[in-house]
Amino acid sequence: MHIESLITCPETKARAGEIKTAHGLIQTPVFMPVGTAGSVKSLSPVDLIETGSQIILGNTYHLLLRPGMEIMESAGGLHKFMSWDGPILTDSGGYQVFSLGQLNKITEEGVVFQSRLDGSKHKLSSEISMDIQRVLGSDIVMAFDECTSYPATIQQAKTSMELTHRWEQRSLDYFRSTDPLYGHQQHLFGIVQGSVYPELRKESAKVLVDMGFDGYAIGGLSVGEPKADMYGITDAVTDLLPQDQPRYLMGVGKPEDLVEAVSLGVDMFDCVLPTRNARHGIMYTWNGPVSLKAAREKDAHFPLDSECGCYCCQNFSRAYMRHLFKANELLVYRLASIHNIHFYHELMAGMSRAIVEGSFSTFKQEFFARYNLKRAEKSS
Amino acid sequence: MHIESLITCPETKARAGEIKTAHGLIQTPVFMPVGTAGSVKSLSPVDLIETGSQIILGNTYHLLLRPGMEIMESAGGLHKFMSWDGPILTDSGGYQVFSLGQLNKITEEGVVFQSRLDGSKHKLSSEISMDIQRVLGSDIVMAFDECTSYPATIQQAKTSMELTHRWEQRSLDYFRSTDPLYGHQQHLFGIVQGSVYPELRKESAKVLVDMGFDGYAIGGLSVGEPKADMYGITDAVTDLLPQDQPRYLMGVGKPEDLVEAVSLGVDMFDCVLPTRNARHGIMYTWNGPVSLKAAREKDAHFPLDSECGCYCCQNFSRAYMRHLFKANELLVYRLASIHNIHFYHELMAGMSRAIVEGSFSTFKQEFFARYNLKRAEKSS
Repeated sequence: MHIESLITCPETKARAGEIKTAHGLIQTPVFMPVGTAGSVKSLSPVDLIETGSQIILGNTYHLLLRPGMEIMESAGGLHKFMSWDGPILTDSGGYQVFSLGQLNKITEEGVVFQSRLDGSKHKLSSEISMDIQRVLGSDIVMAFDECTSYPATIQQAKTSMELTHRWEQRSLDYFRSTDPLYGHQQHLFGIVQGSVYPELRKESAKVLVDMGFDGYAIGGLSVGEPKADMYGITDAVTDLLPQDQPRYLMGVGKPEDLVEAVSLGVDMFDCVLPTRNARHGIMYTWNGPVSLKAAREKDAHFPLDSECGCYCCQNFSRAYMRHLFKANELLVYRLASIHNIHFYHELMAGMSRAIVEGSFSTFKQEFFARYNLKRAEKSS
Repeated sequence: MHIESLITCPETKARAGEIKTAHGLIQTPVFMPVGTAGSVKSLSPVDLIETGSQIILGNTYHLLLRPGMEIMESAGGLHKFMSWDGPILTDSGGYQVFSLGQLNKITEEGVVFQSRLDGSKHKLSSEISMDIQRVLGSDIVMAFDECTSYPATIQQAKTSMELTHRWEQRSLDYFRSTDPLYGHQQHLFGIVQGSVYPELRKESAKVLVDMGFDGYAIGGLSVGEPKADMYGITDAVTDLLPQDQPRYLMGVGKPEDLVEAVSLGVDMFDCVLPTRNARHGIMYTWNGPVSLKAAREKDAHFPLDSECGCYCCQNFSRAYMRHLFKANELLVYRLASIHNIHFYHELMAGMSRAIVEGSFSTFKQEFFARYNLKRAEKSS
């Protein structure tokens, strides 16, 4: 898998390009909304398309536990099950096993964990994760890794990274020995680990590039480390990744993180923040986040963001949205999610255009001037 | 206000026609989705239009308590507030005061009640209800009445009905003495009461018709009385209402009730059942209701209703819907509501076409044969 029509920023490491998948072309840099349990919370496929979503993420862990792989296979995979014809990336399931804390045992073979739904025991390994992602039929499959917890000593991080490398080699070998179930091509990404230690990260990047994946992710960031570490590690890793293949910074992040990481050469992102915050009334605007629950919005009979072209801003006022939040009306979770996801996609599209036009540095500067200025105003 | 282009069934009292409002034409018989607190739960205005909604209902009681009339007036009324350009009917607020049980005091003047949200005291009377509905700017305003509780003795029912008549006369007088706030014409409907007593109902119908409203509602039914009473009273009342004006059976009901009541000469309906049941996984089909939570749906990779043209049935399987219900995914409440509201509108449209084509009796017969047959099969 390659990044095609690649255009690079002369002043930063930012890049714009295209990725071809069996379910369509993706313009990068790209944000991938998270469809945890087979739906991007509150949004339909039409909503996703209308907000500008090009690719969505599905969670192996959640789908394995419910509805389970038997139903997923009889449905013909995740695309058909959820009626989404665009590209899908699935994670390996590992991250949730570690982060949701029902891990029973970790061995060289893999992990054993308990379902948080019914207490049933499940195994996950490189081979099982590949099998599951074959059943899901995602366009981009993630190798099975251990997400190193934070903080970790350099020795802990090294041990974890080396286990990840062995799991990823097994993922790659097994993936290559199996075929897609539904006739369309799937691609496999490797995941760079190594915690906040640049020397480990560099080693990890080199090892994975030698293995030869279709694309490379940076895992284990946005887990509590300082921002400087997040950006520093990203910077160090992208230097070592192939120019012509996609790079994906997992689980990141806030709008400001996306802008920084794009300038460091990242192409792909996913994060639950825009949808989770939407459900709590925290809305993203070019002037910074706004809380729709604030009393000052109660008679604000104007849109959340007058520049925004989303269905929410084109039709509804802040006052109406606030009222719906106060009344716990289901409609508002969808409207707010539409706006936030649309904002994220507009931000990515804005960066993409700026890179193509050779004005990315100016875009970045103006974004921060405005986004931060207004946040400062609000907190003063 | 008149029912225009009226076509009547030669064998029953069923009628098809058109009602003109400032916000558009309504084809009758019509079902009105309930937009309790300024939204039809989980549905956007586009969803309403796509499901075939011609007019929606707003609840004075809920909107009075939240967001309150100050915000509603500064928004420019309910149409603008919720971004719905079609016709709106608002109730008087009385029914909720009585049914939600926070009634403090009832006098000749009106009622005093406490907000269930913050305990604050509020008054409602004929004049206050008309003022509120002027602020809401609904196309059809309901007179202020007392919904007689069930069961009631004939004396209780008579006393309640006579109070209702005095309140309705005051509603009419006050409504006529005031002007719309937003430039568009509003119409006032009277409400026939009298519990399950045909002689009271007939008296009430006569008294109200003499007052001269724009349309007539039948209130106080679907409150626990036997079906035979609901249909018998409806039959007796429609005999006494003007042929050329709209008739509205309040709060009714199930699909079978709508078919029966249309055959008895009713034009308009509202009910929370299709949206409330949708949120509990009870879905309406031409073969009777289906529960999406049933285990047998878990690998049902086909639509809820193969004949249905709604967004839900055109795109999603029962298995997917069941999965979303099990996972409490927000998307499913909207998809299920889209289907149920669409089904109700299709039922009304089917009756309307049958009346126009002179085949209503056949339609009714076939509807019951199929709808009931399958329900019997399921319970056996």
